[in-house]
Amino acid sequence: MYEHTLIGLDWGTSSLRATLFDSTGHIDQLRHRPWGIRQLPEGGFAAALTQITADWPMLPILACGMIGSRDGWHEVPYLNLPTTPAEVGWALARINTTDHRSLYLIPGLRDQHGPDVMRGEETQLTGTLALRPELATASTCILPGTHSKWVLVREGRITAFHTLMTGELFALLQRHSILATGAAISDDEAFMNGVLAARHSGAKGAFSQLFSIRTLMLEGTLAESSVSSYLSGLLIGEEFRIALEEGWTIDQYPVQLIGDATLCQHYHLAARGFGIELDAPLEHAASTGLWQIARCAGLIRSTP
Amino acid sequence: MYEHTLIGLDWGTSSLRATLFDSTGHIDQLRHRPWGIRQLPEGGFAAALTQITADWPMLPILACGMIGSRDGWHEVPYLNLPTTPAEVGWALARINTTDHRSLYLIPGLRDQHGPDVMRGEETQLTGTLALRPELATASTCILPGTHSKWVLVREGRITAFHTLMTGELFALLQRHSILATGAAISDDEAFMNGVLAARHSGAKGAFSQLFSIRTLMLEGTLAESSVSSYLSGLLIGEEFRIALEEGWTIDQYPVQLIGDATLCQHYHLAARGFGIELDAPLEHAASTGLWQIARCAGLIRSTP
Repeated sequence: MYEHTLIGLDWGTSSLRATLFDSTGHIDQLRHRPWGIRQLPEGGFAAALTQITADWPMLPILACGMIGSRDGWHEVPYLNLPTTPAEVGWALARINTTDHRSLYLIPGLRDQHGPDVMRGEETQLTGTLALRPELATASTCILPGTHSKWVLVREGRITAFHTLMTGELFALLQRHSILATGAAISDDEAFMNGVLAARHSGAKGAFSQLFSIRTLMLEGTLAESSVSSYLSGLLIGEEFRIALEEGWTIDQYPVQLIGDATLCQHYHLAARGFGIELDAPLEHAASTGLWQIARCAGLIRSTP
Repeated sequence: MYEHTLIGLDWGTSSLRATLFDSTGHIDQLRHRPWGIRQLPEGGFAAALTQITADWPMLPILACGMIGSRDGWHEVPYLNLPTTPAEVGWALARINTTDHRSLYLIPGLRDQHGPDVMRGEETQLTGTLALRPELATASTCILPGTHSKWVLVREGRITAFHTLMTGELFALLQRHSILATGAAISDDEAFMNGVLAARHSGAKGAFSQLFSIRTLMLEGTLAESSVSSYLSGLLIGEEFRIALEEGWTIDQYPVQLIGDATLCQHYHLAARGFGIELDAPLEHAASTGLWQIARCAGLIRSTP
């Protein structure tokens, strides 16, 4: 049994995940609570931290995500691009908790073109480059989600990224718009037709095709229960269309999906609609990223 | 005092507007009720009709809008493009009301490319071409709204149209997304910056720029109270960008705005951001359209 060396926190808007690492970087214990920065327990940040780490040893704590945002515990300035995982480790903010422990916060990244920002994904990216070092030379990383991130990696550096509100727009349209329907089924054919509609929309873009979903439904060409799949395909396809328009040469360099397996599966299928075959996605890259950043920052005591 | 000849109804999803015409086509009385087809009074369609026409003479009744849709009183098939206002008049559906009056329903239009559909706007277009006959040769008509319509007119015919869900997307994003803010002010400069962001988004499209609004807000470049104006400019600008990508040559033929004055004013400003100067908008084209279609259909008794 190895001794424990680090507590890692992935502290986002809607949830808090704590990881207890042993001295080799393996996860010894994992805890998950619905204490995102907007839904904290009584006692706020400090109480949430004390409760989720109860019974764990007194160790350095490293946190990524919205906990370092303006609405978080303490605002950490963004690091401007280009940057490397090591530079992220050198720019941690340190605060002392009420129970006399050191909490280190990872800065988010900022792409001055856009402008665009991320908080939390930089840690997933760091983990990804540690797990798949061959991506460091030249690759595109896709982190699907409420706010999907497309990230360009060149010569070990994160050189550009672009956030698309795909997940949020999908949820809004599916719940509140005239495209909202009753029971939905998962329909791969409808999904792919949505992807292809996005691809064929050309410079007009997929949003120019939104109302056609309503018409296809009225005419019976698209079953009401498949509207949700079609809409999902259209919006995810739009991400690939935009990436190609931006000249991200996703057909030339490796493209790595990072995140939830089900969501990544949708992106995998959408890529196929653009004639691109992607590798298997990476899940749980954040914990590896926390470990890597802690090492770069010198937070981990070396053991014999 | 001229005698009365026609009752016109503009019966949409959220409201019902009734017009009593004299024999010259002038409006003698107007009534407005919140009885859209989804919020009818007790007694349904028949009761709404009886109540809104109470004390008016027994005359032919002509109705446009969602009343002729699947969720309306009686479904009237769409007329396929290309079509003329006269052809719309020849394709009315007639139903007998419980109080033994004749109610004529105007068909919507369908553009098989798209596919796309409209119900109600065909009547506004008919009114527009009667009020401004010079538009019949070659023009583009824009009907802003929840579902904006861009309509191509060539040689007296409606030859193509395209629906964009601008108003609905704006409402969803402004109310329910991370771009939702507290008190909003009307900020013409922010609006125009949004229009220009759409124009400069090129083939990527304005939706690729949505998240940048969040970043501009975080960085203090865009005041929170101006986010709504910027978003409005971005989404309306996207309509012009798409129209230009579709090759609608809006810089070559007259472009006519039709609809609510305040909303048209926004489109007028957005057009300016694309270097296009539009003529004054047309309000209340629907009543003129109802009158014209009634004439084409032979519903109006000729008077000496």
